[in-house]
Amino acid sequence: MMEQLLHTPEGVRDIYNGECARKLAVEQKIRETMNLYGYRDIQTPGFEFFDIFRKERGSVASKDMFKFFDREGNTLVLRPDMTPSIARCAAKYYSEERIPVRLCYLGNTYTNNSSYQGRLKECTDAGAELIGDDGVQADAEMVALVIDCLLKAGLTEFQIELGHAGFFDGLLNEAGIQEKDREELRALFDNKNYFGIETRISQMPISGEKKELFRKLPQLFGTEDSLTLARKLLTRRDVCQGDGGAASEAAVANETAAAMEDSKYSAAMEAVDRLEKIYEILKLYGLEKYVSFDLGMMVTYRYYTGVIFKGYTYGTGDTIVSGGRYDTLMAQFGKDRPSVGFKISVDGLLTAMERQKIRIQTEGIDALVVCKDGQSERGIVLAGDLRKKGVRLAVYHLEGHNLEDYVEYGKRMGANSLFYIGENGKEAEKISLKTGENKNG
Amino acid sequence: MMEQLLHTPEGVRDIYNGECARKLAVEQKIRETMNLYGYRDIQTPGFEFFDIFRKERGSVASKDMFKFFDREGNTLVLRPDMTPSIARCAAKYYSEERIPVRLCYLGNTYTNNSSYQGRLKECTDAGAELIGDDGVQADAEMVALVIDCLLKAGLTEFQIELGHAGFFDGLLNEAGIQEKDREELRALFDNKNYFGIETRISQMPISGEKKELFRKLPQLFGTEDSLTLARKLLTRRDVCQGDGGAASEAAVANETAAAMEDSKYSAAMEAVDRLEKIYEILKLYGLEKYVSFDLGMMVTYRYYTGVIFKGYTYGTGDTIVSGGRYDTLMAQFGKDRPSVGFKISVDGLLTAMERQKIRIQTEGIDALVVCKDGQSERGIVLAGDLRKKGVRLAVYHLEGHNLEDYVEYGKRMGANSLFYIGENGKEAEKISLKTGENKNG
Repeated sequence: MMEQLLHTPEGVRDIYNGECARKLAVEQKIRETMNLYGYRDIQTPGFEFFDIFRKERGSVASKDMFKFFDREGNTLVLRPDMTPSIARCAAKYYSEERIPVRLCYLGNTYTNNSSYQGRLKECTDAGAELIGDDGVQADAEMVALVIDCLLKAGLTEFQIELGHAGFFDGLLNEAGIQEKDREELRALFDNKNYFGIETRISQMPISGEKKELFRKLPQLFGTEDSLTLARKLLTRRDVCQGDGGAASEAAVANETAAAMEDSKYSAAMEAVDRLEKIYEILKLYGLEKYVSFDLGMMVTYRYYTGVIFKGYTYGTGDTIVSGGRYDTLMAQFGKDRPSVGFKISVDGLLTAMERQKIRIQTEGIDALVVCKDGQSERGIVLAGDLRKKGVRLAVYHLEGHNLEDYVEYGKRMGANSLFYIGENGKEAEKISLKTGENKNG
Repeated sequence: MMEQLLHTPEGVRDIYNGECARKLAVEQKIRETMNLYGYRDIQTPGFEFFDIFRKERGSVASKDMFKFFDREGNTLVLRPDMTPSIARCAAKYYSEERIPVRLCYLGNTYTNNSSYQGRLKECTDAGAELIGDDGVQADAEMVALVIDCLLKAGLTEFQIELGHAGFFDGLLNEAGIQEKDREELRALFDNKNYFGIETRISQMPISGEKKELFRKLPQLFGTEDSLTLARKLLTRRDVCQGDGGAASEAAVANETAAAMEDSKYSAAMEAVDRLEKIYEILKLYGLEKYVSFDLGMMVTYRYYTGVIFKGYTYGTGDTIVSGGRYDTLMAQFGKDRPSVGFKISVDGLLTAMERQKIRIQTEGIDALVVCKDGQSERGIVLAGDLRKKGVRLAVYHLEGHNLEDYVEYGKRMGANSLFYIGENGKEAEKISLKTGENKNG
């Protein structure tokens, strides 16, 4: 029973000692970087009406949300994702703003996942949203900002992979894949289930050229060369005509219709063009070395419509960054504005940095003041003087402990010195906790 | 429908623009002050098992908590109060620590109140807990720390009123008031319902002296003199004998027994002594002018056992600070350690500061870079250079707007200057947004 009382629910945790100080330090660095790019802080409630996140929004699945009721019987959810909340705010408070709005946030999100692999149900996300700008510069700015945030946090080795929601959708449209089959295909590609992809593709009533494209898709990742390869595949004339598979009559008709169009794979090609432009702009930022491509990347949330990106580093299997362009989400809140954003998983970033043994500068405790019994008044006065100079310290009373206990404790806390206040009339003794030497002061 | 989609649930809200920046600035000041006193940051989950807050804990009433279930059917609650969570952590992580532990936090708490007076259901609390120290210096340190936090946040006119859980309890015990009647009396005193108090007191089967004491209780507030007055009332010999009211036989027997004791009102007297000592120590901190007394103060949470305090200022009817000593709470988590703590209502503090027109220094946006169409590459490079110097700025593209729109926007955002990048080969033009003068740069 008592044991039980000390537990936290599955998937949530306490953060204390050095870990909490490091988390706050990293959060502060990220926030400063977002402010440096002109993003203004915003906070939204920890819970919202279910409507804000319902299926049409394209955010987290309903079954993965924590739901409860208010006194009036409305369904509330712990926010599983910040973007729909920010979109709501932007539609509400900035609807008259004709100039692009830049917002950033730091907050916890909650996912009621089934907790395999010890996944966290409460996560701290730091993110930014650029609202009202459909330009490729806006896409590039978000990627540059997220890279700069990671660098300022202290991470050095990571990759931001760029994909595009319109690339896969364009291929599906061109191939005339039914809506009911699309989810299955997305899941196969998302899980990089190559056998599944092969089986499913070979059964589809589409041309051999198209099959070839879908088969090659998982290879379309890596450097800029992957964009060139994609371009080649999209414009191959030699595979434009024939159909290697046992296509149905309907597929043949489809194929003929498609061949008649001039703008073959235009949506997919536009996606490749866009990614290439983003890459060119990132060179101006001097950040292109952190960027690679993955045209087979699937969207994390269905509200993404354009560029999508994910960040990876050593020491964590999960993505530490995800983001993308969502040009149709805000219209659902009554204000049609193209937007792009990202979030950094602060927990994931901290885990990775810890495993990579990256030192995070934190401000710990500088000193201890330890008073002999009856000397606490002098201790309080000395502590007040030291604090005025910015020395971070706490006052302790000997009361049954040995001075050695405090010396050991101070070292454990990373303090530099201990001031011991002994007999009346004797000056405070300053004990260095770094080298062990004593001096008055 | 669309209108509905923009709403937040009753009692929670979005915080944006200058208000969010001011909130973050105040939070940072409070955190730095708590760190200066040697308190280390801790974060606990947004929801916990219901058990952590159940009735025995003496925290918020069960009906005022937001409850929901996890996948296993356990009852979870959005934390309504940080102290029980911190007590849980202290019992779990610091159970072997023999030296007092100082922890501080900043986090949101949730109360499912019935929302009269537009009360907030999501509140940001900043607080500190000193665990494992039963000394009067610890009580004084908490009061000094909370005063210093408010001063560093920028508040200048406020009062911390000190009371003591043991004073009223001591009187109730001495008067032999039944447990069932105590809650009613507490509520009457808490609401300062003087007619109700008078009616209830006159019906009670206690001596006239005791009735006199309860009647005088609401007057025992203000300066140090209130402690002197309390001391006088507790030691009055002249009213020790007679019983002016129509006392029952049982009450007369009680009275006789009480009169036989030497340690008359000893618990209440100890409370007065303790408050006097706290006040003496606060003089060493030089902070006594912010402190007054209220011996009729009732506990906010039932887990308080010793000194209790509340902070008030102009511009808000609610308390902006509440705190106290809770020496028995941690034993419920398996580790018996005397503790004292407080929380500052960040929302209440901000409301008060706004109404008092206290300026909170925030770091806004320094500049805008506005690019003529086709000049965005130059804008990105200039922005990069300026950011390296620490200039907080965003890049905009003219695209259909007038430069004047951006000048107006920049002024509205509080920026100092706007860099306009016009024709190729022409240097960026720096427009001051403060005085209107132009210069190249």
